[in-house]
Amino acid sequence: MHQDNDCQIAVIKNRTRHHCYGNVGTGVIDSALKANACFPLFQKDAVKRVFSGIQPTGIPHLGNYLGAIETWVKLQEEHGSVLYSIVDLHSITVPQDPAVLRQSILDMTAVLLACGINPEKSILFQQSQVSEHTQLSWILTCMVRLPRLQHLHQWKAKIATQKHGGTVGLLTYPVLQAADILLYKSTHVPVGEDQVQHMELVQDLAQGFNKKYGEVFPVPRSILTSMKKVKSLRDPSAKMSKSDPDKLATVRITDSPEEIVQKFRKAVTDFTSEVTYEPARRAGVSNLVAIHAAVVGVPVEEALQHSAGLDTARYKLLVADAVIQKFAPIKSEIEKLKTDRGHLEKVLQVGSAKARELAHPVCQEVKKLVGLL
Amino acid sequence: MHQDNDCQIAVIKNRTRHHCYGNVGTGVIDSALKANACFPLFQKDAVKRVFSGIQPTGIPHLGNYLGAIETWVKLQEEHGSVLYSIVDLHSITVPQDPAVLRQSILDMTAVLLACGINPEKSILFQQSQVSEHTQLSWILTCMVRLPRLQHLHQWKAKIATQKHGGTVGLLTYPVLQAADILLYKSTHVPVGEDQVQHMELVQDLAQGFNKKYGEVFPVPRSILTSMKKVKSLRDPSAKMSKSDPDKLATVRITDSPEEIVQKFRKAVTDFTSEVTYEPARRAGVSNLVAIHAAVVGVPVEEALQHSAGLDTARYKLLVADAVIQKFAPIKSEIEKLKTDRGHLEKVLQVGSAKARELAHPVCQEVKKLVGLL
Repeated sequence: MHQDNDCQIAVIKNRTRHHCYGNVGTGVIDSALKANACFPLFQKDAVKRVFSGIQPTGIPHLGNYLGAIETWVKLQEEHGSVLYSIVDLHSITVPQDPAVLRQSILDMTAVLLACGINPEKSILFQQSQVSEHTQLSWILTCMVRLPRLQHLHQWKAKIATQKHGGTVGLLTYPVLQAADILLYKSTHVPVGEDQVQHMELVQDLAQGFNKKYGEVFPVPRSILTSMKKVKSLRDPSAKMSKSDPDKLATVRITDSPEEIVQKFRKAVTDFTSEVTYEPARRAGVSNLVAIHAAVVGVPVEEALQHSAGLDTARYKLLVADAVIQKFAPIKSEIEKLKTDRGHLEKVLQVGSAKARELAHPVCQEVKKLVGLL
Repeated sequence: MHQDNDCQIAVIKNRTRHHCYGNVGTGVIDSALKANACFPLFQKDAVKRVFSGIQPTGIPHLGNYLGAIETWVKLQEEHGSVLYSIVDLHSITVPQDPAVLRQSILDMTAVLLACGINPEKSILFQQSQVSEHTQLSWILTCMVRLPRLQHLHQWKAKIATQKHGGTVGLLTYPVLQAADILLYKSTHVPVGEDQVQHMELVQDLAQGFNKKYGEVFPVPRSILTSMKKVKSLRDPSAKMSKSDPDKLATVRITDSPEEIVQKFRKAVTDFTSEVTYEPARRAGVSNLVAIHAAVVGVPVEEALQHSAGLDTARYKLLVADAVIQKFAPIKSEIEKLKTDRGHLEKVLQVGSAKARELAHPVCQEVKKLVGLL
């Protein structure tokens, strides 16, 4: 079985210890993937708290869904203390239209609920409603040096795209991200590959704080999600992205069946009509197989069996249909949830109150240690 | 009468309009100084809210007292809404010992109360107890570009003295300072000359926010206090400073009479024994005259009359005695206040609750405008 397959691969990265956590080695992941079981990401007792955040900008696409959101749903089923934050304070590091931002926060809430995030099982909350995030962030900002932030890949890449070189918020947001995570003494953080460097900063800040003030923060570990596995439908060498200027490249959770069919119909493949899974040589069609397998929830081999006798043109329609089937109940639930703005606001308020209950004592503990209290 | 005299000179600086506020021009200040009256700093109805902050590090010295603290006391008598903050979040931008910092916050509270800050007339509070400061600071951080902060004189000067170039907190603290001020929709801010450039940033942020989101913040104006007027006793070309390595250079409010006498006795003057006021030519002795006049509360001319017939050696003792007399009741009140830690904590709690009442609605208003609420 190819490592670079379609199923969600979750590995735990620990920069400081260089080994995987509990009984999760490549072998375990491989067998789990082969069996398509809901494999344990790590030994239950080792995971004390899972935290992750998502920016409320734009409707999630297939890559976000298969990479992050499905993992989130799985983690809330497997672990006792799980927090998911709609990180609105991160989204203002680039210019936002206030009315759009406000609506996007509620839309994202609806999307997450519709995808299966259950506020009874995980704490779903809005970052800006828990004032402790910026308080801890300030304290951590006083523990990091400028070059450390200036050398982060994301900052360097993002300022290149921003007029006048980006705001100071864009520079310092990895510190706010560290505060988000450490504020809950989180032990595990599902992140995309583009966040690995930021997680190293979080780990360094946790260790730096502990060294100076005593063992306060667990050093959190990344759960690397497979967001990168889903490629653009128009350029299978690039990952699927919210901000792709080619509208046909990205399938959003809320796309209509017609849009989904159109996007898959126009998906870039090659001149061979046979359906095979060879990511290195045939990236386009392999991306379709990967999406198909992930959406149906089967290994790649099984997805290929379904394609027997189909040429790529007909296979595209089969995959489009699988995606439509997958998203249909989610899309309908999103539409239903969006009709009740009050309910969505209430969910965030209740979640934020729960988050605050956890955050407040940690923030007080930190303030005491630093000498502010 | 020389402009560069000892009495407290308060002028209002407005970078954007380039004129003074109300009826306060140089002429008014001059006559006020001549008469040694408690002149109106500006027309009462124009001042809606005064805000200032002081870091809780180190015991204030004569320069702080005559420059900032005396002005603070005066302002609380003259205006209806006055806030003074012990800005502990600023002090952690450089390394602090937690136990010392905690004690310093209470010590500063005692000093300010003893000097005449009256919690019934002004809101005296601890910055870190009002979480809205860091919340607004984050929002403003997302509105400022890196080069703007990197070009500030203080940052350039401070990183030169810090190992490894200073923390990101040291870089961004002028933005937190802007949040401190704007959070209360302050209209006037007593500041030292070294803060003028930071006040320009505050003004720009207020104007930038208003331009984008509507008229929310008054553009605050500086009340320039005369802290710079008191010179080091050991080097009258430098201003008196908390961090002067020469212990004899700086007279602290809590110094014993013996220490004060010793410091004035060793004050650097020149080889002329006559007492005159010629700051440009005879900086050392003129500094003594300036201190004398300010402490006794008379114009320089009157202070000079008191020195008639005295040589500089005997005049030093006269000035030392005036300072001792001035500080004696303050020192004794500080000692009394410091015996009741609970009272000092209570003062800060009550003040912080009052500040929060003002800060919360402004923070909510800002969040709504930005799209977070």
